[in-house]
Amino acid sequence: MSKIGFIGLGIMGRPMAGHLLAGGHDLLLVKHSSPLPQELLDGGAVACASAQEVARQADIIIAIVPDTPQVEEVLFGDNGVAAGLKPGKLFIDMSSISPIETKDFAARINALGCDYLDAPVSGGEVGAKAASLTIMVGGPQAAFDRAKPLFDLMGQNITLVGENNGAGQTCKVANQIIVALNIEAVSEALLFASKAGVDPARVREALIGGFANSKILEVHGERMIKRTFDPGFRIGLHQKDLNIALSGARALGVSLPNTANAQELFNACQGHGLGDKDHSAMVRALEIMANHEIG
Amino acid sequence: MSKIGFIGLGIMGRPMAGHLLAGGHDLLLVKHSSPLPQELLDGGAVACASAQEVARQADIIIAIVPDTPQVEEVLFGDNGVAAGLKPGKLFIDMSSISPIETKDFAARINALGCDYLDAPVSGGEVGAKAASLTIMVGGPQAAFDRAKPLFDLMGQNITLVGENNGAGQTCKVANQIIVALNIEAVSEALLFASKAGVDPARVREALIGGFANSKILEVHGERMIKRTFDPGFRIGLHQKDLNIALSGARALGVSLPNTANAQELFNACQGHGLGDKDHSAMVRALEIMANHEIG
Repeated sequence: MSKIGFIGLGIMGRPMAGHLLAGGHDLLLVKHSSPLPQELLDGGAVACASAQEVARQADIIIAIVPDTPQVEEVLFGDNGVAAGLKPGKLFIDMSSISPIETKDFAARINALGCDYLDAPVSGGEVGAKAASLTIMVGGPQAAFDRAKPLFDLMGQNITLVGENNGAGQTCKVANQIIVALNIEAVSEALLFASKAGVDPARVREALIGGFANSKILEVHGERMIKRTFDPGFRIGLHQKDLNIALSGARALGVSLPNTANAQELFNACQGHGLGDKDHSAMVRALEIMANHEIG
Repeated sequence: MSKIGFIGLGIMGRPMAGHLLAGGHDLLLVKHSSPLPQELLDGGAVACASAQEVARQADIIIAIVPDTPQVEEVLFGDNGVAAGLKPGKLFIDMSSISPIETKDFAARINALGCDYLDAPVSGGEVGAKAASLTIMVGGPQAAFDRAKPLFDLMGQNITLVGENNGAGQTCKVANQIIVALNIEAVSEALLFASKAGVDPARVREALIGGFANSKILEVHGERMIKRTFDPGFRIGLHQKDLNIALSGARALGVSLPNTANAQELFNACQGHGLGDKDHSAMVRALEIMANHEIG
């Protein structure tokens, strides 16, 4: 059993930390102005004064926070993790952040004699609660092997994508590119059919099983037809992920024209107050342009 | 058993006509300057002087030709099908053409007292030979029921998408939109990962089974990684289908931004001499822009 520091107790982190505690590990948390989750304290989790103190007491420190600046703050801010590390410790970032800045963060943690894994997840709150997350990992094989028993408590489909840091984050970016573009594919196809006077539900059924089939056609296509846009995965979060894709693409000299378009449609959704809707509501941006609702 | 006229003996039509003949139907063909397929003549198919003569002798006339103008020529050109029709006959267009012009063609055939079905297929030469085509049908239920035994000889996944003519063609357009955009999704994601230094094969494996999964990630993603760009389905044909989508979108007042982008990438592929490659070679256009090949 390990002493695990866990930083970031949002809708993802809270159930994930709970699974580690239930797995018999010692859990160290950072004191907040708001109360820490009672079920974690009841399970024996210990509150520390700062991330630095968590890092001093723990063997492995896990963070899952909203975006790149928050990871930087957790690691290198005042009383941050880096100030409490000693050689041999392992830091695991399970946030979804920039793969390029991840390489920089990892180099600075490695310079302290510690290993770094980037290990973003997909599967959302449902996957976090059910311990069925997909976990995409970048970093050294030995560090991956050390972390694997913890990943097994939180997820099911766990892949070491590459032994370079950033490989996990890069894979997550690829995932979010495909999901966004497949949502736009289904949106454009069903809207075209509906505006042409054809029942989009019949079209979806006819296409499932053929070359147009995808998880998105099955799940998000149905949401578009049934007009169930409750998240799910919020448009605002997908915008953050596509921002990582597009700023990464700029840094790498890669042109991603459809990813850029999909982001613009999400921006239009924000303009119509849809930022908290499920990302399948991207179809609304196209519907507004076409002056026509499917279904 | 029916007397079936069959017009269009290309790589799709030839095996499809063969299945009808093998199913015990009488087959009427149009004489060409080039010889008719010997296996059809050996099976008892009869050559007629013109499409008009085929329509005069047959109960049901099937056409599968390259594009909208060819269907118009077959129907309404000199000595065309329309000139040979009498009330009660059925015309089935299995070509992939414009859903909008399909409505016009159907109205003109209906005015002659005949039924019209638009019944485009997907599945390619392999599906045509194996009689496993997906057939997407638009038109009256009674006409669909009359044609169903013939469809069963040629395909497996047969759907009456709608009782208005054009519904089948519209569904085929939706199919081709999704396939093109899913190809671009996988292309952008794998190219981003590869340029970031991550093995695209590992990324593809990590994503299969999650929300990014699709038939295209499985099949075309593998072609991109293994660099097997032999058709398959030729870029030139997919351009024709996206042209139908984009001109239809213009007529309908629907904006399809990513479909337009995907067509531009296919255009770029043509500029690089790739028009006869499989549509998964769309990734080449992005690779050329990024000055980087995946894999």
